[in-house]
Amino acid sequence: MTTATTSAAISALSAREIVRRVGAGDLTVEAVAKSCIETIAAREPVLQAWAFFDPDLVLRQAKALDKAGTKGALHGLPIGVKDVLDTADMPTEMGSVIYKGHRPAIDAASVAQLRGQGALMLGKTVTAEFAGVTAGPTTNPFSPSRTPGGSSSGSAAAVAAGMCPIAFGTQTGGSIHRPSSFCGIVGYKPTYGGVSRAGLKLAAETLDTIGLLGRDIDSVELVAAALLNRKPSDATLPKPRIGLCRTPLWTTADPATVEAVEDAAARLAQAGAQVSELKLPKDFEALAEARDGINNYERARSMAVEWAHHADKISPKLAEIVRKGQAMSYDDYLWAARTTADCRALLNGIIADYDILLAPCVPGEAPEGLAWTGDTRFQSFWTMLHAPSMSLPTHKGPHGLPVSIQLIAPMWQDAKLFAASRWVAQILGVTTLGVTTP
Amino acid sequence: MTTATTSAAISALSAREIVRRVGAGDLTVEAVAKSCIETIAAREPVLQAWAFFDPDLVLRQAKALDKAGTKGALHGLPIGVKDVLDTADMPTEMGSVIYKGHRPAIDAASVAQLRGQGALMLGKTVTAEFAGVTAGPTTNPFSPSRTPGGSSSGSAAAVAAGMCPIAFGTQTGGSIHRPSSFCGIVGYKPTYGGVSRAGLKLAAETLDTIGLLGRDIDSVELVAAALLNRKPSDATLPKPRIGLCRTPLWTTADPATVEAVEDAAARLAQAGAQVSELKLPKDFEALAEARDGINNYERARSMAVEWAHHADKISPKLAEIVRKGQAMSYDDYLWAARTTADCRALLNGIIADYDILLAPCVPGEAPEGLAWTGDTRFQSFWTMLHAPSMSLPTHKGPHGLPVSIQLIAPMWQDAKLFAASRWVAQILGVTTLGVTTP
Repeated sequence: MTTATTSAAISALSAREIVRRVGAGDLTVEAVAKSCIETIAAREPVLQAWAFFDPDLVLRQAKALDKAGTKGALHGLPIGVKDVLDTADMPTEMGSVIYKGHRPAIDAASVAQLRGQGALMLGKTVTAEFAGVTAGPTTNPFSPSRTPGGSSSGSAAAVAAGMCPIAFGTQTGGSIHRPSSFCGIVGYKPTYGGVSRAGLKLAAETLDTIGLLGRDIDSVELVAAALLNRKPSDATLPKPRIGLCRTPLWTTADPATVEAVEDAAARLAQAGAQVSELKLPKDFEALAEARDGINNYERARSMAVEWAHHADKISPKLAEIVRKGQAMSYDDYLWAARTTADCRALLNGIIADYDILLAPCVPGEAPEGLAWTGDTRFQSFWTMLHAPSMSLPTHKGPHGLPVSIQLIAPMWQDAKLFAASRWVAQILGVTTLGVTTP
Repeated sequence: MTTATTSAAISALSAREIVRRVGAGDLTVEAVAKSCIETIAAREPVLQAWAFFDPDLVLRQAKALDKAGTKGALHGLPIGVKDVLDTADMPTEMGSVIYKGHRPAIDAASVAQLRGQGALMLGKTVTAEFAGVTAGPTTNPFSPSRTPGGSSSGSAAAVAAGMCPIAFGTQTGGSIHRPSSFCGIVGYKPTYGGVSRAGLKLAAETLDTIGLLGRDIDSVELVAAALLNRKPSDATLPKPRIGLCRTPLWTTADPATVEAVEDAAARLAQAGAQVSELKLPKDFEALAEARDGINNYERARSMAVEWAHHADKISPKLAEIVRKGQAMSYDDYLWAARTTADCRALLNGIIADYDILLAPCVPGEAPEGLAWTGDTRFQSFWTMLHAPSMSLPTHKGPHGLPVSIQLIAPMWQDAKLFAASRWVAQILGVTTLGVTTP
């Protein structure tokens, strides 16, 4: 047992390394927990990443895990839990005063799955109100005057600041990849439908997807594998066939994103990837409108209870979405649903010519201000299509802040997404990312 | 105000007629509620349809509705709520001792939507354990020694016996259409994805669909329209193009079902429908195996919490499904998911030649015994394909018990399903169905 390992050193460990060392008996779960607690104590006053954090509860869990006879695949791994996932031992407030102090009877299924493999649920990370657009108090770890992105704001900030090596996020529009890019970490949205949503507060269930935010690809795959009953892999897919897909939104990108995507394409081609331009058919231009339709209609329904009893406690921005959704006819919803389904079918055909697609992730760097969590459209474009996607913080913008690229694989080919992402990260240098310092 | 209307007469009213009369001031909600209470008092000792029923709570709701200034589209309509949907004012036990006395914090979204339109939630109807295969105590209204079918057992029995005009059901395999057929009522499974599942206990979320069980098509459409923000319609689609689809399971049907389907096809053709035989490609033969894969894998995940803490309180049949799902590799799950998605895409092409399909609904009459809720395969075949489906109790088997046919429309064409079903019911005589007597 190494006792000399400092908390700062532990905070910099990857999730895989934590699990390896705890498994080998080189590190106690208690030491891991204490390092998280120390980092949180130091940085939380500015970052405001946690909706609930109780050091005593964390230490009790850690000590129990240290005493456990058998060790699971995630033994001792601290995980931040976005506050739209139910937890039986911590409040679940969903970024809304309506749920102040709310205590669910049981854990979300995804939380229970990871606990079953020995993971330690560190606390609840700040979410925008009901995983929507109204921001919580979290600040960007690179610059406290800028948004961390949303809605998985606390998860992204906590991971980027070394408070925990990995955290749950959810994405209905761009709630995993936008904060991942703004905070300079790896974001992963699995293929729609694989991770159980039991115990998740639904937003727009045709789109809601549980995913992960982490500091490195290997660690994200370790936890994803535990959720899906896959074997975690180290596979790399070198020189993949890459479709450079600017999307119909290309003209709305800042120069930083244009440069990031074009630089990535050029360097990956130079390294041997077969990069070719993929122009999507005109059909895809309707996706942005369809996304609003699906989101508004389904939101109005999933918020039926809160609207009936607490409409006055819903933020003006979300209330507007609910009202639009209530006013929307079923026929208009059907148009949105069909348009999206048609695009999914089209993409399935088009994407078969490639291993992965390379696309913009965000318009640019995290914008100034905390009220607006940023533009969702580059992320939600792919959320609508149900394909698995990875965001990698490969580039920097004019202020030295991270700007990610986005990789997309065909539906259900998450394993290929990880393998190709690993190669892309090697070529573009994303593996140098570590804990950000203030 | 008519006060002379007897409880028995009110019990026989359709949902549309109740809403019409209450809306016109010809009937109080209290009188409607009392008729339900009386019918339940008379028949519940044998039927055992209710997991929770509190006459005082019902009367309080009824009186409040009678005092309300405005009247919603479902004002005063009593609805049975399958006990896998959360209710804030009633326990939600899901047919499991694990949830004995469990009180959710808020209503399911679908329940809240109907309450918002003035519906009265009458009580919680018995569900098979977690909407699965382990039966509750409910008996068949036609014969107490036979199963009512499952998992929406209480909803079907209650509606058939006149305890309420309509009830919520859910279908993951065949949980709406099987009990509807066995109890001789109308079952409706909407297109997958339209009705919000917020507050539903998920079983296998790729398949879970909230639907309705009622005594007539018009009443079912009235409530469906309220859930989906459609206008309720009386439209009839005469002489539709019908694809007679026996499915690969045809050889497993009892003579009663073979006769029902062939008789329906013949009489509908005679009445002017364009009936032609639709043979599905061989691909569809894999659906039964794929269904087990999806169901087992997703069940194991949605039950993660119950398995972690209460495995000893899960029935042996459900425990076996969870164990199979836990042991299943992600690759095997992907095979099932892809196979099913391929069949969905194939069906979308094939079905475009027809207005609706006509298919078997169940192998035959409700079997003897209460332990087994019957064969799910004829129903789950279409659940897998996400298409909307209607079961109509048009025929009788050798013991005089109901045997339904099943109608299927293309995805999202629920309006066409209702319109074509109305014509089919007119031709085949399903509208003669009423309240069954013991």
